[in-house]
Amino acid sequence: MKEHFLDDSITQPFWDNSIAPRLEINLGDVVTFECPEPTGQVTPEWTADNLKQWDPSLAHALIGSVYVKGAEPGDALEVEVLDFQHKGWGWSGHIPEFGLLSEDFDYPYIHHWRLEGDTCHFGVQGITLPFQPFCGVMGVAPAEKGRLDTIPPRSNGGNIDIRHLGRGAKVWLPTMVPGALFACGDCHGAQGDGEVCGTAVESPMTVTLRFNVRKGANIPELQFETPAPLDKLAGRYFATTAHGPDLMENAKNAGRYMIDWLVKTKGLTPSQAYVLCSTAVDLKISEVVDLPNFIVSAYLPLQIFAD
Amino acid sequence: MKEHFLDDSITQPFWDNSIAPRLEINLGDVVTFECPEPTGQVTPEWTADNLKQWDPSLAHALIGSVYVKGAEPGDALEVEVLDFQHKGWGWSGHIPEFGLLSEDFDYPYIHHWRLEGDTCHFGVQGITLPFQPFCGVMGVAPAEKGRLDTIPPRSNGGNIDIRHLGRGAKVWLPTMVPGALFACGDCHGAQGDGEVCGTAVESPMTVTLRFNVRKGANIPELQFETPAPLDKLAGRYFATTAHGPDLMENAKNAGRYMIDWLVKTKGLTPSQAYVLCSTAVDLKISEVVDLPNFIVSAYLPLQIFAD
Repeated sequence: MKEHFLDDSITQPFWDNSIAPRLEINLGDVVTFECPEPTGQVTPEWTADNLKQWDPSLAHALIGSVYVKGAEPGDALEVEVLDFQHKGWGWSGHIPEFGLLSEDFDYPYIHHWRLEGDTCHFGVQGITLPFQPFCGVMGVAPAEKGRLDTIPPRSNGGNIDIRHLGRGAKVWLPTMVPGALFACGDCHGAQGDGEVCGTAVESPMTVTLRFNVRKGANIPELQFETPAPLDKLAGRYFATTAHGPDLMENAKNAGRYMIDWLVKTKGLTPSQAYVLCSTAVDLKISEVVDLPNFIVSAYLPLQIFAD
Repeated sequence: MKEHFLDDSITQPFWDNSIAPRLEINLGDVVTFECPEPTGQVTPEWTADNLKQWDPSLAHALIGSVYVKGAEPGDALEVEVLDFQHKGWGWSGHIPEFGLLSEDFDYPYIHHWRLEGDTCHFGVQGITLPFQPFCGVMGVAPAEKGRLDTIPPRSNGGNIDIRHLGRGAKVWLPTMVPGALFACGDCHGAQGDGEVCGTAVESPMTVTLRFNVRKGANIPELQFETPAPLDKLAGRYFATTAHGPDLMENAKNAGRYMIDWLVKTKGLTPSQAYVLCSTAVDLKISEVVDLPNFIVSAYLPLQIFAD
């Protein structure tokens, strides 16, 4: 077993199966990725005005690609998630025309977080979240030719934003080209299921992963294993619910009700509340069978508030 | 504070704001509801053939209504969930043209569970789920006149099927008529978020609730608080994921991948796997912002399998 290191001197803000790999490794090898700020541009000094000049062509600032010898089309590439180290800072924000509630939030907003040990400090009213890091983006080269945008997730994985792909998780990705050509980035210090405002705690991080392969597994899409507990917080949860025939509309309404509650009972601004929903609130499909109305619920751990 | 008891001699398989209440109580009172089998007809002897004659007009076999003195339109009726006692038995099944994957399962299937203490026994390969009881249906009389079907949830609550409304939860319902006219039933011994096959562990139970009111709360839809941990199981979770522009299609695909996995790796029949998904697997909206593709994930606690 060998250990490798990829610095952040070259970023890969696209998927392309014709790319020359930066690194070739054997099965069982460990790679540490120096992942920059997820979008390749935001700094702790940025204000909402800077977000108006935010350049989508730089995102995501992925690190890779890694050619894994022995990974062939039809195999599942196995990625064991070993460790994350933050750099003390992260940001969240909302950007016009992006995010679940872009109809309600048509102006830019940025919020800076201080990361310290295993805690993310929101900086308002003593609110803290546990540091629960993962890569928002983990993917392999797609089967189709050409340069693909990294924003949508696809069969090759990519911008999956699944918050339980943290330490101790094992992720399986469908290998589509010889060597898989893995890349990752978009590190999040904390996120709720849904990532409703479109950003989590976006942070530069050092990420350590081990690679293996499950020969001929032929999985249809990304699968994973993750250790319990799925939620790290004790205490009680407050939840809003929304019913209706469309899961997307229900998700929007459950989010709106939670933002209203945070504004009214905790004194947050609507933007602070929206960002807190994206980083701390989980969207669950409570029921998807009671025709014609389904229920989406938004769960907020109350322990994040200092009392 | 007074304690009351409602037996199961009269069931209310509808919502109707003109119904005469069975019980009038004061704020702070406790009511124990004897809730029959949720659909008012299935017995431990039923086979799949009996499901062909299943009569929807008997469901849900709700117990109520309770007139809560002091609850007025605009108030939130507060329901504190105190206790559940099972009767040792429950059933799950799939019924043609009902359930998330009705396209894939066009025949009836019934599965009986043995409930013992805090455990639900699946009866196949030593699979057990923790007994995590809640009322699938809790609701108040709707604002609109007439008799309404209990299958869809609405602004009055009803068939919400939210699995975290168990012991220790506090549920707030928007009061729509004087006295609220609360009824409940459809007790579930275990359910996953989504209730994908359309049934949970459907069980007769004795349910104890305390009633209060939050004056003038004007909540838009049902809200609740529930104690941590949200998930009772240790060990690891296995998850399938599905991406695409439609949350409903993603939910279907994540469910299909999980059924395939249960059939291939655990040797269950497709029907057993579908029922196990409905009772043990949680559907989460992992991300709902990475246009044009969103991700729904299906999480299975591996601790349910005897090793």
